[in-house]
Amino acid sequence: MMKLYDTQRSGNAWKIRLLAGLLNIPLERVTLSIKRGDLDDPEFLKRSPLGMVPILELKDGCTIGESIAILQFLALGTPWWPVAALDQAYVLMWLSFEQSQHMHPLAQLRLHLSLRRDRGAGDEDMVRFKAEAEHALHLLDEQLARQGRSGWIATQTHPSIADVALYPYTRLASMGGIDLETFQNLPPWLARIESLPGYQPLFSGRYDLNFATIEMAGKTK
Amino acid sequence: MMKLYDTQRSGNAWKIRLLAGLLNIPLERVTLSIKRGDLDDPEFLKRSPLGMVPILELKDGCTIGESIAILQFLALGTPWWPVAALDQAYVLMWLSFEQSQHMHPLAQLRLHLSLRRDRGAGDEDMVRFKAEAEHALHLLDEQLARQGRSGWIATQTHPSIADVALYPYTRLASMGGIDLETFQNLPPWLARIESLPGYQPLFSGRYDLNFATIEMAGKTK
Repeated sequence: MMKLYDTQRSGNAWKIRLLAGLLNIPLERVTLSIKRGDLDDPEFLKRSPLGMVPILELKDGCTIGESIAILQFLALGTPWWPVAALDQAYVLMWLSFEQSQHMHPLAQLRLHLSLRRDRGAGDEDMVRFKAEAEHALHLLDEQLARQGRSGWIATQTHPSIADVALYPYTRLASMGGIDLETFQNLPPWLARIESLPGYQPLFSGRYDLNFATIEMAGKTK
Repeated sequence: MMKLYDTQRSGNAWKIRLLAGLLNIPLERVTLSIKRGDLDDPEFLKRSPLGMVPILELKDGCTIGESIAILQFLALGTPWWPVAALDQAYVLMWLSFEQSQHMHPLAQLRLHLSLRRDRGAGDEDMVRFKAEAEHALHLLDEQLARQGRSGWIATQTHPSIADVALYPYTRLASMGGIDLETFQNLPPWLARIESLPGYQPLFSGRYDLNFATIEMAGKTK
C-alpha cells in the first residue's frame, strides 16, 4: 500500500486523501506533528528533500512531494487528469493558481486567526491576506460562473484534480474570517464536491482507520 | 503562429521564450507594459482571466495562463515533458517548488533592490526574502548534487521543463544581491543550459525580431 505522510490539519495533504477517496485508492496515512519536530527529523528529510508534507511514498520506497505532483501522479489514466492537451493545460493553470494565489493567503488567515489565534483580524498582514484571499476567491467564483451550472473549474463533463486542489482551502476559508455566502458560485460547487462518492472530510472518514503514529529510527515518536 | 503576451522583464515569460527557442517553435511576442496599464485593459483581461502574463494565445484564439501550464503544453510530446509517470511527477514537483518557494522571494529582491530601487538590502522584508531565496537556492543546489554532473533537476538523460522553469529567476539572483558563486552546483548548471542549442537570453535574440507593441481595440498602446 502507498503511504501518505501528512499532518492532521494540512489542507495540502487533505487534497491527496480527498482524491484517494474519490479514486478508491487505499493509502496508509502517517500523520506527523510539526510541534514535535517530526518535519525536521533526518529520517523524514530523506523522504522529503523540500522538508514539507504531503509526501507520497510508493511501494518501492520512491517518494513524491508537492501536492500538484502527487495529484497528477494518482490521477494519471483517470478522468481526473484529462487526456486532451488543452484540457491538461487548463487543469495545470488552475493547479498553479491555487498554489501561487489562492492557498497562501487563505492558509495564513486560518493559521493566525483560528488555529494559533496569535493575530487579530485588524493586524496589517491579516488585512492584506484577507484582500488577497478575497481576490483569489473572486477569480474562482468568476470562473465557475463562466463554466456554467454543470461545469467544473477547468473541465466540463467530469471534475478534475483542479477541483480537488481548490476545494480544501476554499472550504476552510470561514476559519480565516471569510464569508463564503458572498460568493454566488462557491457554495454550490463545494456542495457538489461533497456529494461525490468517496468524498473524504478533513477529520474522520476511512483513512482514519489507518491512522498511524510515525515510527522512525526504531522509535515511536 | 502562436502569440506570447509578456512584459519586457518578466522572468515567468522568459521561461516560455526559452523553451520555444529550445524547441524551435516560432512565437509572435506581444510585449505589454505594466506602467502603461496594459494588464488592466479589458481586452487583455478577456485573454487572461487571472490578470497576469505570460499568456499563450493559440491560433484558434484559445488562451493559456500560468507558466507551468504553458511549459507543459508546449513540451507535450517532446523529451522536455517525459513520458514515465514517476518522471512527470518529479518534473511537476520541481515546477511547483519554483512557483511556491523559489520564484517569489527572488523576484521580490530583484524588483525592489534592482529594478525599482525603492528598498534597501537592510529593509526587514528584504532580509526575510533573502533568507527565503537562499534557502530555495540551497535546496536546488543539493538536488543538483544528488543528480550528479550529467543529470538535470528532475531528470537524468535529457533536461526537462523543470530546468527551463528554474533557470530565469536563478540566473537573475545577483540582481537581488545574491552571490551565486557560493552555491557549488548552480553556476555549472546555468552554463549547461546556456550552451543548449536555441537558448534565448532575456534581452535580444530571435524573438525580438517579432517584438510587437500591443494593438487593442483598434489603437496602438
